[in-house]
Parts: sequence; C-alpha cells; structure tokens
Amino acid sequence: MLELFLIGIGTGNPDHITRQAEKAIEQADLVLLPHKDDSKAELAQVRLTLLESLAVQEPRIAHFDMPVRRQQGDDYDQQVDEWHDAIAQRWNECLSSHLPAGFGRVALLVWGDPALYDSTLRIASRLGLSKAQVHVVPGITSMQVLCSAHGIALNEIGAPFLVTTGRQLRESGWPQGINTLVVMLDGQSSYEQLTEPDIDIFWGAYLGMPQQILMQGRLAEVKDSISAKRQQARQLHGWIMDIYLLRRR
Amino acid sequence: MLELFLIGIGTGNPDHITRQAEKAIEQADLVLLPHKDDSKAELAQVRLTLLESLAVQEPRIAHFDMPVRRQQGDDYDQQVDEWHDAIAQRWNECLSSHLPAGFGRVALLVWGDPALYDSTLRIASRLGLSKAQVHVVPGITSMQVLCSAHGIALNEIGAPFLVTTGRQLRESGWPQGINTLVVMLDGQSSYEQLTEPDIDIFWGAYLGMPQQILMQGRLAEVKDSISAKRQQARQLHGWIMDIYLLRRR
Ligand SMILES: C[S@@+](CC[C@H](N)C(=O)[O-])C[C@H]1O[C@@H](n2cnc3c(N)ncnc32)[C@H](O)[C@@H]1O
Ligand SMILES: C[S@@+](CC[C@H](N)C(=O)[O-])C[C@H]1O[C@@H](n2cnc3c(N)ncnc32)[C@H](O)[C@@H]1O
Repeated sequence: MLELFLIGIGTGNPDHITRQAEKAIEQADLVLLPHKDDSKAELAQVRLTLLESLAVQEPRIAHFDMPVRRQQGDDYDQQVDEWHDAIAQRWNECLSSHLPAGFGRVALLVWGDPALYDSTLRIASRLGLSKAQVHVVPGITSMQVLCSAHGIALNEIGAPFLVTTGRQLRESGWPQGINTLVVMLDGQSSYEQLTEPDIDIFWGAYLGMPQQILMQGRLAEVKDSISAKRQQARQLHGWIMDIYLLRRR
Repeated sequence: MLELFLIGIGTGNPDHITRQAEKAIEQADLVLLPHKDDSKAELAQVRLTLLESLAVQEPRIAHFDMPVRRQQGDDYDQQVDEWHDAIAQRWNECLSSHLPAGFGRVALLVWGDPALYDSTLRIASRLGLSKAQVHVVPGITSMQVLCSAHGIALNEIGAPFLVTTGRQLRESGWPQGINTLVVMLDGQSSYEQLTEPDIDIFWGAYLGMPQQILMQGRLAEVKDSISAKRQQARQLHGWIMDIYLLRRR
C-alpha cells in the first residue's frame, strides 16, 4: 500500500516542528521536494535544513520541478485546476521512478498547516488514494505565530473571529457582527482601504524567520508606516509574506 | 528579571509538542502546575507525562490548586474577573515561595494554543510584567487536529471561515455570507438547532487522545447519532471535549 503523509512544518522557524511531524518525516521512505525557479530561496532552504536535521538524505529525496501556472485568460478556476493536475502528475512520476513496486510511505512538507489556505490536500485527492492512505500531520500556522509574537489572543472572551483573505476583505468589506478578522494572502495591503474608526492592527511579516518584522497600533495611525515598511522589506528581500489581525475596539 | 513562558502543548497527544515548546520547558527554572479537583484526570496526566518525558522533576515543579469560580448570580463577567484575579494570586504565591529572588524562567503549559479561547494570557497580564517578559509559544489547536483527523481543509479555496462558540451559534444563528464555521466550547450540541439544508458536519471528540472519536456526514442525517454518541461517551469517560466544523455545500 502507498501511504501519503502531508506534514505541516510551521512557518519558517525549524523549531516549529512537532514530534509527530519529525517521526513522520523520519519514517518516510521518500520525501517529495518541489523546486521553484523563484526568489524565495529561503523558503526552500527551510525544508532542506529540516531534512538535514532529521538525517534524511538522497536517495530518500525525490526532487521535482514545480510546473508553472498558466496565467493568461480570465478562467482562474480552470487555471488552478490544470495546475493542480500538473502537480499531481509530477508526484506520480516521482512515485513511479522512486517506488516502482507501488508501496511505501511518502512525505510532503507543507508550509504552516495543510488545513489553512493550502492546496496540497486537493492535489493529493487527485491521486485516487483512499482516506486511509492519506494522513495529515498538523503544523503551526502563520496565524498562531502572529499572535504569539504579538502576545495577543485570536478571540475576545467568548467572541468569534473570521479568517479571510485580502481579496475577500476588498470585495466584501468588514463583515457584520464580527470584531476580529485575520487577513491572509493579501498582496495589496487591503487594510489601507478600511474606513471603520477605532480598529487596531497587529501585523507581521516573515514570521518565525530571522528577518521577522512586527508592527501594531491604531490602524489609522500606523497604516502608512506599515505600507512603507512592507514595500521596503519586499524590495530588500525580493519577496514578502505577511498576515495581520484587525480588531474593533 | 522574571520571564513567563506560556507554552502551547497541543490537545492530548504528547507528540503534538513542538521543538520550541520542548526547549522552553527544558530551560524553565520553574513550571507552574495547576491541580483541579475534577474528573478530567486524563488532561492533568497529559501534562505530567510531558514533563516526565522532558526530565522535569521536583523541585522544578510548583503545584498549586486552582481556585473555584463563584457561580451564583448573573454577573458572569465579574465572576470571571474575580476568578482570574484569584488564579494570578496563586501564581504569585508560587513565585514568591519558589523564586524568592524574583528572577528566573517560569513556564505554564497551555492546552492547545494560548491564543485560542484560553485565558492564560489574560491572567498573565495581571502580573504586571512587560511584554518583553511574557513569551508565548504556539501549540497545535483542537481546530487543526479536527481537520487533520478528517483529512479536510478549514477553508474552501480563497474563502473565509468563522471560528465561534456554541453559545454564539445559538444566539446569532448562521452568519451571512460565510460557508464554513468551526464551533468550539459547545456543551449543548448546538448544531441540533440548525435548520439550513445541505450542511456537512465534521465532528471530533477527545482529539489526539486514545479515546478519540470522529463522525461526519450530512448534518440532517447524522446529527442524532452524533448527539447519542456524545451523550454515551460523556457518560463513559465522565467528561467530554468536542469541536466541529460545519460547511454549507
Ligand atoms: C498559501 S497561504 C499558506 C498558509 C499556511 N498553510 C499557514 O498555515 O500559515 C500563504 C499565506 O500565509 C501567510 N503566511 C505564511 N507564512 C507566513 C510567514 N512566515 N509570515 C507571515 N505570513 C505568512 C501569508 O498571509 C501568506 O500570504
Ligand atoms: C477553553 S477552549 C481551549 C482551546 C485550546 N486552547 C485549543 O487551542 O484548542 C476548550 C474547547 O476547545 C475544544 N477542544 C480542546 N481540546 C479538544 C480535544 N482534545 N478534542 C476536542 N475538542 C477539544 C473544545 O471545543 C473545548 O470546548
């Protein structure tokens, strides 16, 4: 039987790894390692450092190049669909060449937690494996690292919070009846557009990594400095990943 | 300087622990260990097993009895307030007797993640320490273990999700414009009251523990069996902790 382990590895700090994830990686017969032709070399390095620290070496690693997503046209859903198919295809090629007998334990290292804005589970579902053959190991999310770094809670006492994306925030505005939002996947500093008074923002970039940046304050007062810092950091490092929590007073 | 470490330990499985949490526990001069006079002995045992596995022994452990919350009257907020004060008071007593010089590293083990429906951060803020003296170490939450156990994602592609409580769900109903809810702290099986058609439920109890139970399906079809199972398990074990994700089709 072929077993697939989708393993959350946290968001940049190798010490985010859990014992459960360590064991799953150590026991894997094969680790699939994607390579991207991009500037985020630090992110690939996190995976390599982790594998080294767990003594996982060639030939237990199957390297593959990530396919590139077609970006022309406005058929976004279909582009993603094709792209996921292409990734599943690469996985299958790795499996055929490294585990030709068709059984073994295969690990995939997922940034943060596989349950949070990540497509690995959806790609895995294309392999036609049963539920019993796909295992998920949770990992520390960027949302949690944001809160721990700022020393804040996600929720107010007994109150709900919404986790959403920059695009959703721009398109739907501040949702009714909810005082706390966590915003991810926001390439466009969408907090700038909010006009609600009395909002606090807790912002973090490169969380868990040596270049981590934290800023916080009353949105109206700090939003310009956050945007300036964001711009500057992106230029300096060539890439940025950031997340923020917004709370109505 | 006195430093306080609020350390997330995951939700029952000792292998949820991260390297960062292990290090923080190992380096602590003192671990504050609450004792409750209750039936949830398994939960206290999780902490003890963890401390043993990290070779933390007396006299590095300060045991204290959790104060009991006054439950008479309808001044709920004030009851909680008084109770948090009383807990902070116990912490202070432990600190004075075990670290009379007033410096050292003190660890508190928090179920799941300190950022999620947990009062440890709020109690810590009563000690009058500065932000630099309170450190939070994130831990795997019950929300993540629910998703990993069911092999599902929290969000649909690019869509938001709301994390809320049983009480909120009962009082405010299904929120507009959101298809996914995670419901915690629900002692009353509040999903039973929902009348929306075409909702799927993914339910889990005792997540990460040997007695873990999972159930899922179309809400209208499985809610009675979940409630029966819940009742039965609570009788069997003397306590229950459960959480669920609801998704509109
Ligand atoms: C594709 S999602 C993956 C999220 C990941 N699965 C998790 O559990 O955090 C990428 C988004 O997560 C957030 N993110 C991930 N890692 C981050 C980090 N180290 N610092 C700040 N934000 C991060 C950013 O909002 C980014 O746009
Ligand atoms: C006071 S909150 C603490 C949450 C915790 N800080 C976390 O990160 O999961 C307690 C609620 O969390 C959920 N919970 C915690 N541990 C759980 C477990 N092992 N299984 C199922 N639900 C759990 C239940 O909804 C419970 O009512």
